[in-house]
Amino acid sequence: MDPIQQHKKIRGKIAITATTKVDQKSLAWLYTPGVAQASLAIAKKPSLVYDLTRKWNTVAVVTDGTRVLGLGNIGARASLPVMEGKALLYHHFANIDAIPIALKTQDPQEIVRTVDNISPFFGAINLEDIECPKCFEVGEMLEKKLTIPVLHDDQYGTGVVALAGLTNALKLVQKKLEQVRIVIAGAGAAGTGITKLLLAAGAKHIIVLDSKGIIYKGRTHLAPYKKYFTQNTNLNSLKGGLTDALIDADVFIGVSGQANLLNGRLVQKMAPKGIVFALTNPEPEIKPLEALSAGAYIAATGRSDFQNQVNNSLAFPGIMRGILDARISKFNITQLVHVAQALAKLVDPKKNKIIPLMSDKRIVPALARAIRA
Amino acid sequence: MDPIQQHKKIRGKIAITATTKVDQKSLAWLYTPGVAQASLAIAKKPSLVYDLTRKWNTVAVVTDGTRVLGLGNIGARASLPVMEGKALLYHHFANIDAIPIALKTQDPQEIVRTVDNISPFFGAINLEDIECPKCFEVGEMLEKKLTIPVLHDDQYGTGVVALAGLTNALKLVQKKLEQVRIVIAGAGAAGTGITKLLLAAGAKHIIVLDSKGIIYKGRTHLAPYKKYFTQNTNLNSLKGGLTDALIDADVFIGVSGQANLLNGRLVQKMAPKGIVFALTNPEPEIKPLEALSAGAYIAATGRSDFQNQVNNSLAFPGIMRGILDARISKFNITQLVHVAQALAKLVDPKKNKIIPLMSDKRIVPALARAIRA
Repeated sequence: MDPIQQHKKIRGKIAITATTKVDQKSLAWLYTPGVAQASLAIAKKPSLVYDLTRKWNTVAVVTDGTRVLGLGNIGARASLPVMEGKALLYHHFANIDAIPIALKTQDPQEIVRTVDNISPFFGAINLEDIECPKCFEVGEMLEKKLTIPVLHDDQYGTGVVALAGLTNALKLVQKKLEQVRIVIAGAGAAGTGITKLLLAAGAKHIIVLDSKGIIYKGRTHLAPYKKYFTQNTNLNSLKGGLTDALIDADVFIGVSGQANLLNGRLVQKMAPKGIVFALTNPEPEIKPLEALSAGAYIAATGRSDFQNQVNNSLAFPGIMRGILDARISKFNITQLVHVAQALAKLVDPKKNKIIPLMSDKRIVPALARAIRA
Repeated sequence: MDPIQQHKKIRGKIAITATTKVDQKSLAWLYTPGVAQASLAIAKKPSLVYDLTRKWNTVAVVTDGTRVLGLGNIGARASLPVMEGKALLYHHFANIDAIPIALKTQDPQEIVRTVDNISPFFGAINLEDIECPKCFEVGEMLEKKLTIPVLHDDQYGTGVVALAGLTNALKLVQKKLEQVRIVIAGAGAAGTGITKLLLAAGAKHIIVLDSKGIIYKGRTHLAPYKKYFTQNTNLNSLKGGLTDALIDADVFIGVSGQANLLNGRLVQKMAPKGIVFALTNPEPEIKPLEALSAGAYIAATGRSDFQNQVNNSLAFPGIMRGILDARISKFNITQLVHVAQALAKLVDPKKNKIIPLMSDKRIVPALARAIRA
C-alpha cells in the first residue's frame, strides 16, 4: 500500500484516550461536582496545575508550515501529517502527549502571541519546521516570554545527534575534536545547531557553507542571521566553494537539503580517514557506499535503511522527557553537550558503532538524566 | 479518597495514544520518507486534510477561564481540570478527540484571533465557561471568521436537553408548549439558549428573570445583551420578582447559579401539575423532594444522584458527533430543535421517564442523525 492509502486507512496518527475508568461513580470526582475542588486548589496555588492536570506531560508541536521537511512553505494544513507524526514519535519513544498546533499565521509576532495565549495547558513547546531565520527569532521571543521550556528541535535535536555520532566516529579514527577540520554544508536551523554544539564541545576549525559557498567575514549577500558563522567559524577567512572547503577536511556534515551535493571525487579531496555525515533526508548528499568507495572511513545518513542513522529522533524524545520530568524552564548549550555525550556513551566505537539504534530503550532515560544533570 | 487526591493519583484525565502500530517498517510511511506524500497531497488539495489527518475528529475545548462552573473568573490554569473533564466526556461518550485550549488572554478579539490561528488541526470548536456577554460576542465572531463549526455548549447543550425534558414532561401533564406559562430564572448563556430553543419549538409565554428580577421592556440597569429577552419574551411586560413570575406558572426552569433560590411556598404559587427543572449545579434551586411535596408534578435537576437528570452532557457529545461526521460548518436553532425532539423520543413519558440516562448508548447516534437531518 502506498503512503497516501495508508494515511487514508488510519485517518490520523494520534487520538485521545482516558487515563482512568469512566463510570457514573468516577464521574462524580472526574467531573461534576468533585472537579470544582481541583480547580479551586489550582486557583489558590497555581503550581498545583502540574499535579492535578496533564500539563506536566503535554507538549505543543508548533509550526507555521513554512519549511516542512524539504518541501518548503506548504502551509499549516499540509504540515499536519508531519506534525502528527512528530506527536506519534513523542508518544512512542517517551510517552509524552504532544499536540499538533499548526498555525494559520506566518507572522513571527503573531506566532509568539498565539503560543503564549494557549500556553496554560502545555508543559513545553516544540518548535517545528519554521523557516530560517524566523525560527530563531520566534524561539528567542518565546524563551523570553514563556515560563515553560521551548525546544527548537530542528536546531538542537540534530545538533545533539551529530555531536554524539561525531564523538564516536573520531574515537574510531583516533582524531581529536579540537584538532579536526570540519565542513558543514547548510547554514539553516540544523547547520546552526550543529555548529553551536560542536563549538561548545571544543571544536576549533569549522567551515560552514550555504548555497552561495563558504561563509566568511565580509562576504556580500549574507543574511544577517548568518553573522553568527562569520564570528564563530572560519577564523582564517577561507573563501570559495565546497571543493575548496573539503581540501584536507577531516569531517563533512551535510544538512544542506540538497540531494547528491557530494560525490566521490570531492570525498577524495578530504584528509585520510575522512568522516562523512550526509544527513539530508530523504536523499542524502551522498550515498554511504559511494563515500566509502571514494575513501571515507565512516559514512552516516539520517535514514533507517543505511547503517549509522544520525537522526534527530534519537534526541528529542529523551531531551523532552528530561525537561518535563525535572520541570526545567530553560536549558543551555552546555546541558545539550552533556546529552550528546550521554548518547555517544550508549555504544562502543570499538565495535564500529557510532550511534545507537532508534529502538534502543536505554536512550530516553539516559538523555533525560543527562539534561537534568 | 477525596477529589484532590484522586486528581493527584491520575495527574490528568486524558492522554495521547497511537492509532496504529509503530515500528521500523510503519515509520517509513508514518514519518520519513512516506509522510511527505501525504503533505504534498494536502498542499495540492486542502480538503484531503480530513482524510489524511485526525482533523475530522478533533475538537478544541476553548475557555478563557472567566466563568468556570459556578466558581467565576478563576483563570485558565484553574479551569484545566474542568476542560480535561469535558475532553474526557467527549472521548467516553462519542469517541471524539478533544483538546483543552485554556487561554491566558481574556480579551474577546484576542480570543478570536488565537482560535482562528490554531484552527487548521481542529474539525470544530467547543466554547466553554466564558463569561456573559463575552461568550455571545466571541461565538458570533468565530462563526463569521471560521469555516469549521462552533458549538457554544453552555448555551445550546443546556437548551437542547431542557427542551427535550420539557417536551416529555408536558406530555405527562397533558399540556401544550404553545399554551404553558414558563418562568426561566437565569439570563446568562444557559438561560439564553433555553429561551431560544423553547421559542423555536413553539413556546409563547416565557418570563425570564436575572438577579434583579423579571426582565421587561424599558427596565433600567439592563445589560445590552439582555435586550433579546425584552424583544422575545414577557410580551405583557410583567414586572416584579420571582414570586410575581411564578403565580400560575406551569413551568419553572432554574439556571440561576443560585442554590435554594426556590422553596415550597413559591412552588405552591404555580398552576396545578407544575413542572420544576432546578438545573443549577451542584446545588439546585430546590431539591426535588421539596418541590414535589409542595405540589409540583415533576421535578428535575442537573445531578446524577436524583431522578430526571437534565444535563448538557446528554446533548453535546451527540451534537458534536453529528457535526463532525457530516462536516457541517454551520447549524441553526431549527436543527437543534430536531435534536431535542430526537432526545425526547428515546424515552416514553407514559412510563414516567422524561429524559434518558446518560449511559444510554442510543443517545449519541440518535442526536448525530438528528443534527444532520
